[in-house]
Amino acid sequence: MKIILKSPSQSIFSIPHRLQYCRTLSHFPKTKEEQKNQKSYKNNYYKEKFTSKSVLLGAATTSLFAYYYLVKEKQQRYVYAAKEKENGKSPSLNPCAKPGLWRSDLPIYTKGEVAEHHTLKKGMWISYHEGVYDITDFVHEHPGRDAVTLAAGGPAEPFWAMYGFHEESPFILQKLETMRIGNLCKADQLKVSDFDDPYIDEPKRSEDIIPATKKPFAGTLRLDYLPLNFITPVQWWYVRNHLPVPDLDANNHQVILEVGGTQRIFTMDEIQQMPKACVMVTLMCSGNRGYEMLETTGTKTKIWGPGAVSNAIWTGVKLCDLLEAVGITAENHGNYKHVQFVGTDCEITGVPYSVSIPIWKAVDKKGDVLLAYQMNGEPLTRDHGYPIRMVVPGHTGARSCKWLTKIILSDKEADGNSQMYDFKSFGPSVRSTTADYEKAPSIQAVPVHSVICRPKARDSVQVVEGRIDVKGFAYAGGGNKIIRVDISTDQGKTWQPAQLDFQDNKSDYPHNWSWTLWSCKLPIDKNQHDVEIWCKAIDTSSNTQPEGFEYIYNFKGVTANAYHKIKFKLIPCNT
Amino acid sequence: MKIILKSPSQSIFSIPHRLQYCRTLSHFPKTKEEQKNQKSYKNNYYKEKFTSKSVLLGAATTSLFAYYYLVKEKQQRYVYAAKEKENGKSPSLNPCAKPGLWRSDLPIYTKGEVAEHHTLKKGMWISYHEGVYDITDFVHEHPGRDAVTLAAGGPAEPFWAMYGFHEESPFILQKLETMRIGNLCKADQLKVSDFDDPYIDEPKRSEDIIPATKKPFAGTLRLDYLPLNFITPVQWWYVRNHLPVPDLDANNHQVILEVGGTQRIFTMDEIQQMPKACVMVTLMCSGNRGYEMLETTGTKTKIWGPGAVSNAIWTGVKLCDLLEAVGITAENHGNYKHVQFVGTDCEITGVPYSVSIPIWKAVDKKGDVLLAYQMNGEPLTRDHGYPIRMVVPGHTGARSCKWLTKIILSDKEADGNSQMYDFKSFGPSVRSTTADYEKAPSIQAVPVHSVICRPKARDSVQVVEGRIDVKGFAYAGGGNKIIRVDISTDQGKTWQPAQLDFQDNKSDYPHNWSWTLWSCKLPIDKNQHDVEIWCKAIDTSSNTQPEGFEYIYNFKGVTANAYHKIKFKLIPCNT
Repeated sequence: MKIILKSPSQSIFSIPHRLQYCRTLSHFPKTKEEQKNQKSYKNNYYKEKFTSKSVLLGAATTSLFAYYYLVKEKQQRYVYAAKEKENGKSPSLNPCAKPGLWRSDLPIYTKGEVAEHHTLKKGMWISYHEGVYDITDFVHEHPGRDAVTLAAGGPAEPFWAMYGFHEESPFILQKLETMRIGNLCKADQLKVSDFDDPYIDEPKRSEDIIPATKKPFAGTLRLDYLPLNFITPVQWWYVRNHLPVPDLDANNHQVILEVGGTQRIFTMDEIQQMPKACVMVTLMCSGNRGYEMLETTGTKTKIWGPGAVSNAIWTGVKLCDLLEAVGITAENHGNYKHVQFVGTDCEITGVPYSVSIPIWKAVDKKGDVLLAYQMNGEPLTRDHGYPIRMVVPGHTGARSCKWLTKIILSDKEADGNSQMYDFKSFGPSVRSTTADYEKAPSIQAVPVHSVICRPKARDSVQVVEGRIDVKGFAYAGGGNKIIRVDISTDQGKTWQPAQLDFQDNKSDYPHNWSWTLWSCKLPIDKNQHDVEIWCKAIDTSSNTQPEGFEYIYNFKGVTANAYHKIKFKLIPCNT
Repeated sequence: MKIILKSPSQSIFSIPHRLQYCRTLSHFPKTKEEQKNQKSYKNNYYKEKFTSKSVLLGAATTSLFAYYYLVKEKQQRYVYAAKEKENGKSPSLNPCAKPGLWRSDLPIYTKGEVAEHHTLKKGMWISYHEGVYDITDFVHEHPGRDAVTLAAGGPAEPFWAMYGFHEESPFILQKLETMRIGNLCKADQLKVSDFDDPYIDEPKRSEDIIPATKKPFAGTLRLDYLPLNFITPVQWWYVRNHLPVPDLDANNHQVILEVGGTQRIFTMDEIQQMPKACVMVTLMCSGNRGYEMLETTGTKTKIWGPGAVSNAIWTGVKLCDLLEAVGITAENHGNYKHVQFVGTDCEITGVPYSVSIPIWKAVDKKGDVLLAYQMNGEPLTRDHGYPIRMVVPGHTGARSCKWLTKIILSDKEADGNSQMYDFKSFGPSVRSTTADYEKAPSIQAVPVHSVICRPKARDSVQVVEGRIDVKGFAYAGGGNKIIRVDISTDQGKTWQPAQLDFQDNKSDYPHNWSWTLWSCKLPIDKNQHDVEIWCKAIDTSSNTQPEGFEYIYNFKGVTANAYHKIKFKLIPCNT
């Protein structure tokens, strides 16, 4: 069975067709009553105030960073096994065994026995390849929150086919293995042919885009190429997908505008006939450099380096114009507080990607929020939202919903994971187990940021006439512009201002939406071997970056804007 | 002779009446030709590109911080004397002598001989009480820039009567004494009766306002009182004057709006009959906590503690409405890039206080820039701009020009000292001698900031039920709102969020103009003796404060928003 993402229609909001797909698998799922019992149990368990809707449909998150962080948080890979032992449970006898392989030291269970364990009361089991796992104690720690309970009583494989980053991470697989309680009997083990790869129709990508995760795809341009273009060529844009890429047909695509229960439907033709706006906008993922932040606390992750940022000229219709046509303006927007955007990409539950922005940003004529159908003068590519997407200047990339199918005015934020869980602001001492997601604000505008792109860390660099060439970018959200980039070669004792080579000269704070490319011919002692350089940017509000990650740490790995520091070597020089 | 500041008229822009006042003193000043020669010499000397207008009229600055910094910069109080010695000049033989007193070890000069030294070519001398000083080498280092040259060839007293902070500072007086070359003959010494105190008519101030400087007056509320009121009572507002307080009559006061050479005059009656706007706005001096920044590098200054911030409800006319009435709007403002505000308070040269803001802020209907005539429902007091002032929300306090008399649309920033010199953004390695004022951007929006007000540093604090009460404020410019304040008792290892007690709930980012008052019942080990607590705020753009001052240091002592850290003692407790 192959999953082809359909053109958007009402059905994707009402019936989770991906859940139905899962139901074709013999182990899955439970009855409604069982789900209800499970939910009631969990509500006590969590002692948190999530609505039943968010519990059931909030579903699978793609919080890549947070998941890996869990491993670090305990700082001992097998602390869970030890804990189980303390609690009198059967511990994982051999936590170093290869994940999912047969272990002769453990008992054998049937899929029927696994299926009996799908509530917290009775215990939650899952199977994976040849293994059976008791995830009961892990449920409240799962960064994807309740999504994991959907898999309880059955195999992990169909879920991990969709959220493939689990299988890409040795940490996650090893963590799973610490919960091992047995083997799945041979006859009940799944074959690859039992389900198809939802990522089989992904678009082709440039070889210069280095993947961070493949399923869903997230990748960034090799860092030294980033400052080569002020306007990033489309094929060099960073890609951050949360789900498989929809394959949409512009001729049949519609965007629904929902205001107070009334829907207005726009075809792509109608949208393209409306007055055009062209705006230069840089998008950056607020998870950019999250890996560095998490790494400082010991987590070894491959994902999300410093290049999750790109700049384009976008063409489309201003959201404020669309809203004005239905009587919603900056002066009069009734009780609406948020504008939600719904994508065509869907979770395994059938819940689509959805995010929202505050109403003030949507109705602000100078806010430049676009329904964009062109990027650098060409139709959008599939990876970047074909045939239409939102572009929300100055805000974290996640709000610029791709494959747009619906816009909803509401008094509430969207309830998608990217709004409710993944891109929220937490303090340094909050952990996934103590996070109060309802109280934590969603990240919208992003803070001031800068990165050294050339040389790269660990490069060998030639000194020419006593200097080395250093290049990079700087960016500040919220319409701020960079006023200065400072570089230091002596760990902050002295600072030299970089030259701001490229900025959008047609715009200024607070309506500047693009990055700054900077360079510096840095005087350097050629007899040095190992050099460390730091950079920091200052924006039009005189905000600057924090020096290190320690005090801005958050378990989500977002807004990781500490000084960028790199070490490299000088090529020995006899002249 | 007593100086009474007149109601504003054209004359204050054309004839520097304070300069005329100085001319009544026998030593002062030089002929126009002499001034011209002096200027020509200086232009070479500085190798900087200031216009003759700014050189002659830019005049006396009130850069309190920078001046003191000069002392620190050399890090040895008497390095100048040593330098003079090295250069073969007569050094100050006894640099520790009390400033301005007779020194029998030095030669005697007449006022005529002093008057001969008023050019850089011939050398610049001044007299002060019984002393004669050669300031030639100091001129290019004077933080008040060319202002000092106006005094050359004559006595310092009439200038220092206006810029009284010089005489309030032992550092400045000691610095002067390092340039001592002789004594002024008895007959030529000034008497107090030779000139009057321009500050004789200052308004009365609350005893709770602690002066930083008296002439001009700058003072802040005692810190522990600051979080007592979300709306600061007027008598508790911080005061930052740059010159003597004008004594204006609302019945005769006018505001001139100058657009493209055309002037429109508004009386106070006319302004008060226009549609009213009430806006809650916090103002903060961007020099707040400047003393801490400068202190980290060794300067001992008394001025500008952490309380140069207050919050009020302002009533007035929106600048955008006034501008709309003359056809200037957000959509159409021609080539105008800046809106200049001119006050009635004047430098000794007759040049009035003037500042500017970018046009986008002035025409933004949501920007809430006011011509305010009421503060907390009452007419403005003299200290706060009676009868009318600007209030520029989200921007540094200096832009909220008091005693407003003129608004000018221009393609240039205002050329007053507070725009051109005092509140500019420089990197950590720039010094007063290397600063490029033309290139450095003026500070408008201010960065995120927070301060612990209770307990105060060095307080003795009682632990109640294992906790201590901590209170403070946080503020972010540019319309940002505070989303979190973090407190640490273990130097950043762990952080606890404070409770945000008071915010303006009617407004949100990016149109929030008021501060946040926060509190925290901090768990504390009562057996500790010495406690250090840190606080930092995070705003709606996820920007936060830098941990220390080292990397944000600037010689102006502005935007000093490092974490606020205080040390105090616990009262021994036997329970």
